[in-house]
Amino acid sequence: MRIRRKPGVEEKLLAQTQYVIDPNRLQQTWSHFFTNDHPVHAELGTGKGRFITTLAQRNPDVNYVGVERVPEVLWQCVKKAVDLNLRNVAFLWMDVQDLPSLAHKGKWERIYLNFSDPWPKRRHAKRRLTHPSFLSIYEQLLVPGGEIFLKTDNAGFFEYSLNQVADRDYRLRAITLNLHESEWREDNIMTEYEEKFSKKGQPIYRFEARLRT
Amino acid sequence: MRIRRKPGVEEKLLAQTQYVIDPNRLQQTWSHFFTNDHPVHAELGTGKGRFITTLAQRNPDVNYVGVERVPEVLWQCVKKAVDLNLRNVAFLWMDVQDLPSLAHKGKWERIYLNFSDPWPKRRHAKRRLTHPSFLSIYEQLLVPGGEIFLKTDNAGFFEYSLNQVADRDYRLRAITLNLHESEWREDNIMTEYEEKFSKKGQPIYRFEARLRT
Repeated sequence: MRIRRKPGVEEKLLAQTQYVIDPNRLQQTWSHFFTNDHPVHAELGTGKGRFITTLAQRNPDVNYVGVERVPEVLWQCVKKAVDLNLRNVAFLWMDVQDLPSLAHKGKWERIYLNFSDPWPKRRHAKRRLTHPSFLSIYEQLLVPGGEIFLKTDNAGFFEYSLNQVADRDYRLRAITLNLHESEWREDNIMTEYEEKFSKKGQPIYRFEARLRT
Repeated sequence: MRIRRKPGVEEKLLAQTQYVIDPNRLQQTWSHFFTNDHPVHAELGTGKGRFITTLAQRNPDVNYVGVERVPEVLWQCVKKAVDLNLRNVAFLWMDVQDLPSLAHKGKWERIYLNFSDPWPKRRHAKRRLTHPSFLSIYEQLLVPGGEIFLKTDNAGFFEYSLNQVADRDYRLRAITLNLHESEWREDNIMTEYEEKFSKKGQPIYRFEARLRT
């Protein structure tokens, strides 16, 4: 996504204390933050936020945490959450790499990776969000039996991710090479990117991986 | 593959006792049959036999068993084995469904499924060679830690097979959506069908699944 720098966005984000969490200042556990014990599902890289805010509307008994580093992108999400007056969504303004510092705040039941940057060059493999170094971060954050739900339009990233996960202690399921034609299409919430991309007739790849207990 | 019926083929097969095994008459274990204790790898549905006979040439320390039901197809394989004077290959003239009757003859270390009939209609799912009923047959035949190596040109069959295997107790690996462009291409032996098909520029899908011990 091309990002236009907007002056003043950082200040606006910091003012939205109900929705935007500075990870260095999160004193509480997730249960305290959301004032309930509902399970927590996270999206790593939120894009413009349609996916996570739609999920939050549909599932009031789940708390959603969006992790996003880029303030201009995050602001799109926050605006949606404000407009919808959502009580079960919050955003971590941070880099995925720094997530381990939050592991003691309470575990997550599910992580969504939607259309993550594929970093196609081999020398950039370490930056892919399914590189073993990232998977081991997620494993610190997930409950036993926790899940990773991945979708992508990039065949190479899909293949890479599938192999990385298969190499670790997950149970794979709901694997599809063409989500929009598959049996899993009905529950699918399209991201902004996904809608734009799939209109060109390109397939969307998807899998679920559940940590073995 | 279109098959032209040829009179006399059945008699010719029965005369090739060194290569063609009537499953009802196999008295011995595989070790006795091959007169050694080498591991046994099987191909279910041999096609014209280039794959299995090439493997047998390359790997003299592995015994290969091809399972094929159609006499005219099997005869193509037998001719290749005779021409190459192979000592480590034999063919079971039978239906894959009847394999459990042979489980006590000795276990297999690996099963190859190459371009099996995809049976794309849902009502024919039971005929797919990766249907749970077939996977449970293979599990009777495989050693602990035994492997299934699958390749196909059919995305639907690949997706189905991947999900079926993921749902059972296997470790998946070497998953690729484009074998001929992947890191696994170098060891690949093309079947006759694969060569013809991939010349059209279509991708070949492949995975390996190893029974967890």
